[in-house]
Amino acid sequence: MTAAALTTPSPDKLDAIRALVGPKGIFEGEDAAPFLSEWRSRWPGKAALIVAPASTEEVAAVVKYCSENGIAITPQGGNTGLVGGQIPQGHEILLSLKRMRKVRAVEPLNNTMTVDAGVTLADAQEAAEEAGRLFPLSIGSEGSCQIGGVISTNAGGVNVLRYGNTRDLVLGIEAVTPSGEIWNGLKRLRKDNTGYDLKQLFIGGEGTLGIVTGAVLKLFPQPAEKVTVCAGLDSAEDAVALLSLTQTATGGQVSSFELMARICIDITLKNIPQTRDPLAAAHPFYVLTEFSSAQRGLREVVEEVLGEAMEQGLIKDAVIAENETQAHDFWRIRHSLSEAINGEGLGARHDVSVATSDIPAFLEKAGAAVKKIAPDARIVPFGHIGDGNVHYDIIGPEGSAKDVLEPVRPDIESAVYDVIGSFSGSISAEHGVGRHRRDSIAKRKSAVEMEMMRAIKQALDPKGIMNPGKML
Amino acid sequence: MTAAALTTPSPDKLDAIRALVGPKGIFEGEDAAPFLSEWRSRWPGKAALIVAPASTEEVAAVVKYCSENGIAITPQGGNTGLVGGQIPQGHEILLSLKRMRKVRAVEPLNNTMTVDAGVTLADAQEAAEEAGRLFPLSIGSEGSCQIGGVISTNAGGVNVLRYGNTRDLVLGIEAVTPSGEIWNGLKRLRKDNTGYDLKQLFIGGEGTLGIVTGAVLKLFPQPAEKVTVCAGLDSAEDAVALLSLTQTATGGQVSSFELMARICIDITLKNIPQTRDPLAAAHPFYVLTEFSSAQRGLREVVEEVLGEAMEQGLIKDAVIAENETQAHDFWRIRHSLSEAINGEGLGARHDVSVATSDIPAFLEKAGAAVKKIAPDARIVPFGHIGDGNVHYDIIGPEGSAKDVLEPVRPDIESAVYDVIGSFSGSISAEHGVGRHRRDSIAKRKSAVEMEMMRAIKQALDPKGIMNPGKML
Repeated sequence: MTAAALTTPSPDKLDAIRALVGPKGIFEGEDAAPFLSEWRSRWPGKAALIVAPASTEEVAAVVKYCSENGIAITPQGGNTGLVGGQIPQGHEILLSLKRMRKVRAVEPLNNTMTVDAGVTLADAQEAAEEAGRLFPLSIGSEGSCQIGGVISTNAGGVNVLRYGNTRDLVLGIEAVTPSGEIWNGLKRLRKDNTGYDLKQLFIGGEGTLGIVTGAVLKLFPQPAEKVTVCAGLDSAEDAVALLSLTQTATGGQVSSFELMARICIDITLKNIPQTRDPLAAAHPFYVLTEFSSAQRGLREVVEEVLGEAMEQGLIKDAVIAENETQAHDFWRIRHSLSEAINGEGLGARHDVSVATSDIPAFLEKAGAAVKKIAPDARIVPFGHIGDGNVHYDIIGPEGSAKDVLEPVRPDIESAVYDVIGSFSGSISAEHGVGRHRRDSIAKRKSAVEMEMMRAIKQALDPKGIMNPGKML
Repeated sequence: MTAAALTTPSPDKLDAIRALVGPKGIFEGEDAAPFLSEWRSRWPGKAALIVAPASTEEVAAVVKYCSENGIAITPQGGNTGLVGGQIPQGHEILLSLKRMRKVRAVEPLNNTMTVDAGVTLADAQEAAEEAGRLFPLSIGSEGSCQIGGVISTNAGGVNVLRYGNTRDLVLGIEAVTPSGEIWNGLKRLRKDNTGYDLKQLFIGGEGTLGIVTGAVLKLFPQPAEKVTVCAGLDSAEDAVALLSLTQTATGGQVSSFELMARICIDITLKNIPQTRDPLAAAHPFYVLTEFSSAQRGLREVVEEVLGEAMEQGLIKDAVIAENETQAHDFWRIRHSLSEAINGEGLGARHDVSVATSDIPAFLEKAGAAVKKIAPDARIVPFGHIGDGNVHYDIIGPEGSAKDVLEPVRPDIESAVYDVIGSFSGSISAEHGVGRHRRDSIAKRKSAVEMEMMRAIKQALDPKGIMNPGKML
């Protein structure tokens, strides 16, 4: 089942695959480039062929041929992944879902929507909105990432606190198995207890067990009122206490709760045009939080909660966005952060999670560990702390070379992961494993868990053709 | 991997198992009876030994011994299952989790709770409430069913519409694998994308892949206000339209939405003491619905929606419960229905689901199919139609013998399942497969799905010792 057993396919086999999809489904020469590099340029790719089938049947035909001929496949959605999961290493064909972009059905009465895997997240959101519904998944790359990709990576984003991860938003999937069969699991059901819930293996499976070609997604009523707040705080402890206070006082109507250390604001103001300091004075930490409610009168409730938080000393200052533009300005800082950090160098980036109440202790312990390895490094912690998810990024000293941290990056990563281990946390909260964290999970997960994962991979993809070298 | 290969263990092997748990963990003679029959008396059981370990380590020791000696195991929680999944057939030992009843931790700041598998659902709800939180899972058997059982069967209940099935309420599990190893998957994390989400196989796995010994459960803020309504309607179409109207108008604050045909009221009044007709006049259908909100002022919103529904002709009459007692009276009818149906005979009972908007068409088509087989039978449809889940029960004519429908029961079941198939529905929405629906799913699921399920079972339980004869 190892990738090593699979070799680069011969030219006549590639021609056979070409014939299965026709010329419109083949991307070569200059057209190939966008599939083979990702935006952080960490994972240069190489593929035996780039093929984009136009239908589930064409996907099945390609996979069936590959299965029979021992050809490996790397599935790719919008190519926005951050761990190299969607990038082939040479002998694989790259199978893109980009030509499958149909919204198959929107059923507001069922609160469901059935879409092709290649529909972008933004298009899915729009289709829901047109039917008077909300598809709540929202991530930075929503303009280009595709539903098949967000399912295969179980994408998270800014609304997880209220609506869950992608896993919580999928009712059914259609997938092509590693032997090229079509599994129609496109159920529009809220309840179905008739055996193992197989779709759960494809969700977050990173394309190692088959290719997701379609999905039934959950829709929600649109909230009647939204309130966006930016608050300045003294500490991460206060942020955790503020989360609990607001959750309780609003009965769980907090949809986003994002923490940023002051340095996040500084490097955004420096690297991203048209951003501005959200509060009058500087504070050690900032919380950007969004409340949403079905009922009017939410703003009064939020004002009351903020007043109480101020009295308790949990927040030092807070601004409620007066309109969409101001809310957008707050969010622009948060959404630009990844790009702002890119502007400061390659750095060492982490996407970790712990139980929410452990966040302050994690920040302290991890900070000490990093400083031991790179005393001058700057620590840029931010993220969805309502979900215990911290993007714990380390960058070099101001003005240093882009790659200054590269030599110690593995040491930093290892130290941060050790700290995560001490809190029983996750070393990849939302970005996945891919190539990047493959060795790390093999080292850090329990033997019994790794054995179960390998047994499942072996059972469902005995020839090992699906996305070899990724995750396992 | 088949059960046939496993034989009844010899007396010395049973003695070895006895020694692993000590005398307190063995139930014999009269003490054995409660484990071997279930409340509908449909599945008489027989076990080689009944053993109740006191800890996860003891469970692991027993399973390891059984694995090494080819002894089959049927795990059992509160013995409230309805499809015989928890009942052994003779050669298995029955492993009860009833002695593992510790609430290990409640963490309101994380909105999590960690419990032993043997904690009853009612005790879990209470532990959450004591910490000022809500554990929203609620089913008829909550006084005796256990967390390990509700996880292994992915229990649903009356709050699925708002909070999801058990699957949506579990963050992590601890389980003993079929080879007797302990897998510590007790994560308190909202996000963790580091490989296949293995817990999903154990949730709803009906004990066929291992034994759940502990779990981390999600908690929620307690709602500030609840409003319970009983409404009389002319048709199931009107009920579906009313659901959509109330969901939209309250922004999704409907926690329960239960449909009952008039006959449900009639047989409850007849069979259950201290119940009374909820509305002044009789109506073809009733909806019992509960709204809950974090904010005050919910009742006004509900009154407004009901007014609109009345104007649109969707409801003919409605009563808002004025106090807890009145709400309790409404719910008593719904919660007593199963018992009331028992009072009318064995019947043919179904637990099916379709997309919500298909419910009226399903009722019509299934009704016609049933009447063709048993023209005098009474059809008693009720259930969680907010989730598309109908408990579609058929009973004999008034005053007929308890077992009058037994001869045609298989035909009725088959006809109902055929109709369900025509709507791409589920033949077991929440009760599971167990022994009862094992043949039906094998016949009715696609070959590719059955193959994947069997491959997983074979991969994780190669000796086939876990709950043989159930599900697969």
